[in-house]
Parts: sequence; C-alpha cells; structure tokens
Amino acid sequence: MDKIDKLVVCGVGLIGGSVALALRRARLVNRIVGVGRRPEPLAMARQLGVIDEIATDWADALDGASVVLLAMPVGQMDAVAAAIAPHLAPGTIVTDAGSTKRDVIEAIYRHLGAHLGTVVPAHPIAGAEKSGPAAAQAELYRGRKVVVTPLPENTPEAVARVREMWAACGAVLHEMSPQEHDRVFAAVSHLPHLLAFGLVHDLAGRANAEQLFSYAASGFRDFTRVAGSHPEMWRDICLANRHSLLAELDAYLSELAYLRALLLDGNGPSLEAVFADASRARNEWADKAFPATPSGE
Amino acid sequence: MDKIDKLVVCGVGLIGGSVALALRRARLVNRIVGVGRRPEPLAMARQLGVIDEIATDWADALDGASVVLLAMPVGQMDAVAAAIAPHLAPGTIVTDAGSTKRDVIEAIYRHLGAHLGTVVPAHPIAGAEKSGPAAAQAELYRGRKVVVTPLPENTPEAVARVREMWAACGAVLHEMSPQEHDRVFAAVSHLPHLLAFGLVHDLAGRANAEQLFSYAASGFRDFTRVAGSHPEMWRDICLANRHSLLAELDAYLSELAYLRALLLDGNGPSLEAVFADASRARNEWADKAFPATPSGE
Repeated sequence: MDKIDKLVVCGVGLIGGSVALALRRARLVNRIVGVGRRPEPLAMARQLGVIDEIATDWADALDGASVVLLAMPVGQMDAVAAAIAPHLAPGTIVTDAGSTKRDVIEAIYRHLGAHLGTVVPAHPIAGAEKSGPAAAQAELYRGRKVVVTPLPENTPEAVARVREMWAACGAVLHEMSPQEHDRVFAAVSHLPHLLAFGLVHDLAGRANAEQLFSYAASGFRDFTRVAGSHPEMWRDICLANRHSLLAELDAYLSELAYLRALLLDGNGPSLEAVFADASRARNEWADKAFPATPSGE
Repeated sequence: MDKIDKLVVCGVGLIGGSVALALRRARLVNRIVGVGRRPEPLAMARQLGVIDEIATDWADALDGASVVLLAMPVGQMDAVAAAIAPHLAPGTIVTDAGSTKRDVIEAIYRHLGAHLGTVVPAHPIAGAEKSGPAAAQAELYRGRKVVVTPLPENTPEAVARVREMWAACGAVLHEMSPQEHDRVFAAVSHLPHLLAFGLVHDLAGRANAEQLFSYAASGFRDFTRVAGSHPEMWRDICLANRHSLLAELDAYLSELAYLRALLLDGNGPSLEAVFADASRARNEWADKAFPATPSGE
C-alpha cells in the first residue's frame, strides 16, 4: 500500500495503539499523531513509542492528515465527529474502530455530511481484557476479521484505502450492512460481555464473595475473562446497540427459563440433549475457528 | 506416602485417568485396575498406559484392593455404591471425585453403611473441556484444590490416606461440609456451565447459526469453553445439585432483570458502575488466582 504520511489516532488505547504499532512496524506510516480527552494515556503512548506526537487541538491534529482513525469509546463518536468537521480537509480519509456501527453512522450523517465520500466505518474483531496504551500490540489484528460497513456515499478509493490499512495490520477484511453487523455482534460479543459482567457483579456483592472466588477455577476464569473489559467502552457499546442487545438478552432469558424448568422437573434426558447439542456445536466451532488451539485452550 | 499396592479406578476418563497417571509417574502405585460401564474407554486407557488391567466384575476388581477411586459421572454413584458393597473388604479405602457431595454421601449411607470408616468423599477442582482417557494428564491436579468432605464416621487414617493420595498428585487439600461445598460450587462452577451451555444451544439453533459462529472471536471462545464439557457428567451434576443451582440461577436471573431494566432506560451511569465493579473484582481475583497468567490470559 502507499505509505501513510500522517496518521491521526483518536484514542491511543488497545485498539488505536495496536493499529499504530502494526503500521509503524510495517514501515507504512511516516508520522503518528495522537489525540484524546486525557493527557496521561497520550503521554504514556508517546513514551512507549506508540505515537510520535501529541496534538492538543483538532485544527493542529487534522492539518495535513492523510488518515484519521477514530478509536475512542463509541459514546464519544458524536462529539468527536462534530469537533473534527470544521477542520477536516477534503481527501483526508476517516475511519473508526467502533464495536457498533448504526450509532457511529448516525453521528457521521449528523456532522460529517460534507465528507461522506471519505468517511468509511469499520470494526476490527479483536480485543483483550486489558486496555490502555500499555496493552497495545502490533500483532493484535494478525488473522483477525475486520468488518467494513461502507456508506453508499463512500468513494471506492476511500474504501480501498481503509481496507488496505487493516490488511497491512494482518487483518482479514469482510463487509456487512450496519444493521446486520449490529445484530450479529449483539449475539456473539455484546451479550456474552453483559452476561459475564452480570455474573461477577452478582457474586462480588455476596457476603461470602471472598470464599466463592477462592474456589473459582479455570472454567470460571475463562467464562469471566470478558468481564475484565473496559467498563466505559462496554457501557457505550451496550447503550449504542441496546435494541439488538435486548432482543438477544430476551432470547437468552427464554433459554434460561427452559433450562430452569428442566432443572425443576429433574428432566435429565432433555438437559443432556441441550448440553450435548451445545458441546458438539461449541467444539466443532472452536476446532475450526482456532485450529492451532483446539477447543479454545 | 506408603505405596498403593492395588488402585482401582472406576471411570478411566479425564478425572480418574489423570489420578492414575499422576500416581504412576510418582511411583506410588504397584497396579492400577480399571472398571467401567463400557469396554472402549477401558481398552483405550490400557492401550495408553493409564491402567494396567481391566476388571470385568466388581468381585475381581475389589479383590485385594488398597484404594478405590470412584471417578464416573455422579449419576452412577448410587448404582456403583450398591454394586461394590458386597465385595468391599474391611480396610479398603474408598474415595470419589464427584463434583457434588450431598448426593454422593446419600448414596454412601444408603449402600455402604458397613464401611463408613473408610469411605471418604472428595472433589478435585480441576477439569478440561475434553473428556475421556486420551484427555488424562499426570499434571492435571498440580497446584489445584481438592476439597475433602469427610464423614463423621471416617477414621483419621482413612482421611489421611485420601489426603496424601491427592497431595501426591500435586493438589492442595481443603475441607468443607458437603452442604457448603455444594452451595459454593453451584455459584462458581455449576451455574457458569449451565449459562455457557445455554448460550451455545440458543445460538446453534438459529437459522443463521453458521454466520453467527463465523464472527465469534476469542471472547466468545473463552466464555463458552466450559460448554465443551461432557454432557452426561454435567447433566448429573446439575440434577444432583439442582436445589443449590436453582437458587443461584434465580439470583442470576434477578441480576439480568436489573441489567435489562438499565438497558431499557438507557441508564449509562448505573451500567458503567456494574461493569466497573465486575471488571475490578474479576481482574483482582484473576491476578491473584493465576499469578503466572494475569487476567487469565
């Protein structure tokens, strides 16, 4: 791909920082400028070599920018889109890394109507339960999916530029409609996060919480790993995608009502049938999706 | 510890097979005899060197037995306790590896009343989502907890013998009442398994299941790892401990009802407070419980 002369990263944490590290290592960027709400992460990102410079205002940040990556929690998308609009030069490519897409696209139409050709929404399917610049890693996106949800107004060149940026990070590119994207990720990502946060919150509030945690083992560790995720980021995701998330939560509550009835009835055959279906589906999926690590170990 | 002359393992899968491998590697057992319902796992266990011999009936198996480890699914405990009673010699130590204890102890009182001094219930807190003899590993119990729930009738010698057997596998010994054991593990083990089985079962039944799984990533992999567990074993655990499990499920359903209301109201501050509490509690626990692997990675 053509080298990016000036990359602007808004939100220099795990997601934005890892893109910066990957492109720098690939020698595909000349200057990386960080912007954000709080000075501490920016200072740490510069200290760690994730970014080269810190911009203190958007005029400065966007001056001569080639590509702008919006990688802050999605709850800030509306304010950031409004803030960059006056300073955005024609031809500057803007993309985002938000875990939800409908709300991001609404913010784009609200504030960036003059730039719809070059603002290309995307979502990298990668993360870790640690956050912040120190958690950033050049390999985070290697072999991971990135879902691009282009706007009808996007120019083919802008979409191609965003795709090649993610490809340079080692990612595998996919495209979806924003609606389909938000439905799919409510089911396989947003709901599991909500469920894990809920279980830990329930147990942590018990009088015997310390005893309970002392007997929790590797199954509990893995089940709750996503509950270690960034609270504000997940608050924003759950709110931004709450309609699809509520639909998934209600489907899951029906499943739990069914399992509860089987337990009450002591219905062993039906319980075993549910467990056997789930076990087969889960292991077939994990063996295929993580071939190097069968069953996700 | 004194070497075990003849160890009888009923159920030569992950749990029983791993004890056999650990004691053999430690050179603490002369002969390991396997028993079980089906010939295939027994043949595989002998082929893999997990056991030395296969016993085809209990009279043969228990003849001269030093220690008997009952490691089959807990649903078989009543039948097995009844079957061994007529052949059990005084002085033979019997223990189990069941994940629930109240039901196991009821079976012991029903059928082994003449042997209460030497029948010592226990539960190793270790597992993997793979099962069967091929999954057995000598290191499975290294550093893991084993909870012994002694009967008032147990002799100190019998309890000591069972404790040292597990210690020889590398385990850390704990003691609890059966009631407390079953309450604690309903919360930190049995409920998470039920929840993971339920989520995978829900999604696997969808018309677009293949698409959903294709976008599931490492968070989903870890959240659902326990859903790859042995269906019959978990059917038995859920039925055996269903009163404590239902109490935990209902507490969790209240938590989900609260989270659902927060989503409906778009209550960001309260959602973030729940997520922040959970994230802090989970990461503090994981950093302490798995120091070599912070946050459970």
